[in-house]
Amino acid sequence: MSMTQAERREAEPGIAAAMAALGAEARAAAQALAATSAETRRRALRAAAAAIRRDEATILEANAADMAAARESGLSSALLDRLALDPGRVEAMAAGVEQVAALEDPVGRLLGEWERPNGLRIRRVSVPIGVIGIIYESRPNVTADAGALCLMAGNAAILRGGSESYHSSRAIAAALQAALVESGLPAGCIQLVPTTDRAAVGILLTMDDVLDLIVPRGGRSLIERVLAESRVPVMAHLDGNCHVYVHAAADPEKARDVTYNAKMRRTGICGAAETLLVDAAVEDSLPAILEPLFEAGCEVRGDPRVQALDSRVVPADETDWGTEYLDAIISVGVVEGLDAAIAHVNEHGSHHTDSIITEDAAAAERFMERVDSGIVLHNASTQFADGGEFGMGAEIGISTGKLHARGPVGVEQLTTYKYKVYGTGQVRP
Amino acid sequence: MSMTQAERREAEPGIAAAMAALGAEARAAAQALAATSAETRRRALRAAAAAIRRDEATILEANAADMAAARESGLSSALLDRLALDPGRVEAMAAGVEQVAALEDPVGRLLGEWERPNGLRIRRVSVPIGVIGIIYESRPNVTADAGALCLMAGNAAILRGGSESYHSSRAIAAALQAALVESGLPAGCIQLVPTTDRAAVGILLTMDDVLDLIVPRGGRSLIERVLAESRVPVMAHLDGNCHVYVHAAADPEKARDVTYNAKMRRTGICGAAETLLVDAAVEDSLPAILEPLFEAGCEVRGDPRVQALDSRVVPADETDWGTEYLDAIISVGVVEGLDAAIAHVNEHGSHHTDSIITEDAAAAERFMERVDSGIVLHNASTQFADGGEFGMGAEIGISTGKLHARGPVGVEQLTTYKYKVYGTGQVRP
Repeated sequence: MSMTQAERREAEPGIAAAMAALGAEARAAAQALAATSAETRRRALRAAAAAIRRDEATILEANAADMAAARESGLSSALLDRLALDPGRVEAMAAGVEQVAALEDPVGRLLGEWERPNGLRIRRVSVPIGVIGIIYESRPNVTADAGALCLMAGNAAILRGGSESYHSSRAIAAALQAALVESGLPAGCIQLVPTTDRAAVGILLTMDDVLDLIVPRGGRSLIERVLAESRVPVMAHLDGNCHVYVHAAADPEKARDVTYNAKMRRTGICGAAETLLVDAAVEDSLPAILEPLFEAGCEVRGDPRVQALDSRVVPADETDWGTEYLDAIISVGVVEGLDAAIAHVNEHGSHHTDSIITEDAAAAERFMERVDSGIVLHNASTQFADGGEFGMGAEIGISTGKLHARGPVGVEQLTTYKYKVYGTGQVRP
Repeated sequence: MSMTQAERREAEPGIAAAMAALGAEARAAAQALAATSAETRRRALRAAAAAIRRDEATILEANAADMAAARESGLSSALLDRLALDPGRVEAMAAGVEQVAALEDPVGRLLGEWERPNGLRIRRVSVPIGVIGIIYESRPNVTADAGALCLMAGNAAILRGGSESYHSSRAIAAALQAALVESGLPAGCIQLVPTTDRAAVGILLTMDDVLDLIVPRGGRSLIERVLAESRVPVMAHLDGNCHVYVHAAADPEKARDVTYNAKMRRTGICGAAETLLVDAAVEDSLPAILEPLFEAGCEVRGDPRVQALDSRVVPADETDWGTEYLDAIISVGVVEGLDAAIAHVNEHGSHHTDSIITEDAAAAERFMERVDSGIVLHNASTQFADGGEFGMGAEIGISTGKLHARGPVGVEQLTTYKYKVYGTGQVRP
């Protein structure tokens, strides 16, 4: 059970005071940002990229300290790789910030406009959300990526990185803040929580007077903690249990190639397929689909019908259908027709990204209508679930929630809207 | 501190079981609804209107029982008036449902469409949110209004009315469910929580496996409980502390007429103005603005400069600026210029609806850009904050949250979107 805000303030007065100060700066910065032109925000982002390049040595030195501590504490090699920076990664971070600066301005878009019989003109216009909290784990580059995306959308960001990357993130945040100030914007536009104490996360989650949105980026336990404790609206990607369904009218080569890519291109990303469903009508196409997976060393866990096809198939149990492996493992089942496939995906999936392989457009449309996921694809790999691949530029994540933003969350999804109503003295009868 | 879902289930096993059954029916109904045509939903709503008319006697009888109990328990006359039904109100309820049936279909709108260099065609299409919980107080007509709005947007609704209107709401819900079944839709599309036990609300707020959204409609204490306890995203209207700002370049007649209407047309609605700010440059226009308010019996609470103008002005203290009176009371202050007015509104307002009176278009635009409210008006009354007045048809409320929906929440705002991606076998490089 979570503490109330008052209880937290009492428990950790020093941290609470620091967080309150951070919050007040962020709110003031958000008000200043809401009134900036795209050119001001772009100039600050280009300055931020330059500052990251200029501070490369400082950033790498801070990262070396994080890496030494991480090695000492026995962090896994996968986590060490996420944490590590080198000149190439620093340059990629700077280039990423420049790419965000080059995006179309998401603020001030006219989303709708109409006139009422009484002469009132109503405009719906995109505006920044306000103050966004981002809680992430070991990758220090998120500090620059998330800060830049928030800034381009006119939002102030409060960043809380993983404790293992604290020095790296602090060095990056310092570069960003220096650039903000050089560009005439408040340093409060992008702030890093100045402590690794976990109590700060608990305080952040209850700062509903300051934060308009929290975006957690990390593993399932972090997301679940945030969803359970947060009093602030959360935009999160919980699971990516993605499906490929090979329909009765599938082209066998597309089925084979898309399945292979969806599973094996990169197994650790949220858009990787975890389950393959094959229609009973084309069960005999399964060996050709599975062969490249076996050759690539993928473990195949199948239902009894799939097991009967190949001795290399391991039995799947009920938990497999709901599991996001994020690894070279795939669960494979035979389903009796389109509606059974839709039912399976809606029951076991995570509303992230699901694909149907078929040459039957009506079947594809039925699947895409009825599968309740943020992204549904026809004859294409689930690994396209990505803001860049959607042409939206950088993204802060993929939302599996249903409200505000679904699918890739880019700068446009980091805005909300207001109504501007233009009158000539109208009063309501 | 709120109970966990498991603890609640233990505490009230009977209620928990009933809520779980309700939830399962709602989810199944939402899946069925997602695949319906607008014509099916419209037909069901027209049948619902007919059923309400047909069941008038039953509904009025149930309402008489609620009224008798409410009188006995000493409910205020204002609350009794909200609770009371008569043949005119039953007819208005039926007509309201028919109006919702006549709205444009909010589901399946093409919100965006583009093609990628690799040939993938991406469509963003509006879809129902899913299952929506609505928690409301004494007005039994909300049962029909909210149920109809959710249904037209393709959502299943779980309704929890106030205990004082329980019999009335049950009779109305029975009429709606009969119409659903006649129309070939599951009764689970619109369900009423079958108990007045307050524990049911606590369970509802933790049913994040069933509900996609909760909409609380009621007083501040209800909204605050929901915001504090809910694990489900909440769309709510917290306060309507609305402002009228009379700018230096205001037309005096517009200032007088708009202020009077914004305050006095109806004082008990969320769009009623609670604070009037007058620019120091046109302080001398204040007596003419205040006179009609005094004549109508409005209490005026002013800062020292306003007090000096008229002996009928009562002193305002600091709490007045943040108070939503919902009554014939207005706080009045003199501000030094446009930016001071903007700062006052952003500090003390509730991000609901605020209006500037001016003939200076640039000043209006600055106010409308910088005031962080869902609705900002120029030369028009704050009482236009209403879905009907916006031309959006019926609404389920006004959202003062920033995400997903801001301002009036009509059928369009009760949908979300998904991405449909059409390929020809694309795999990701």
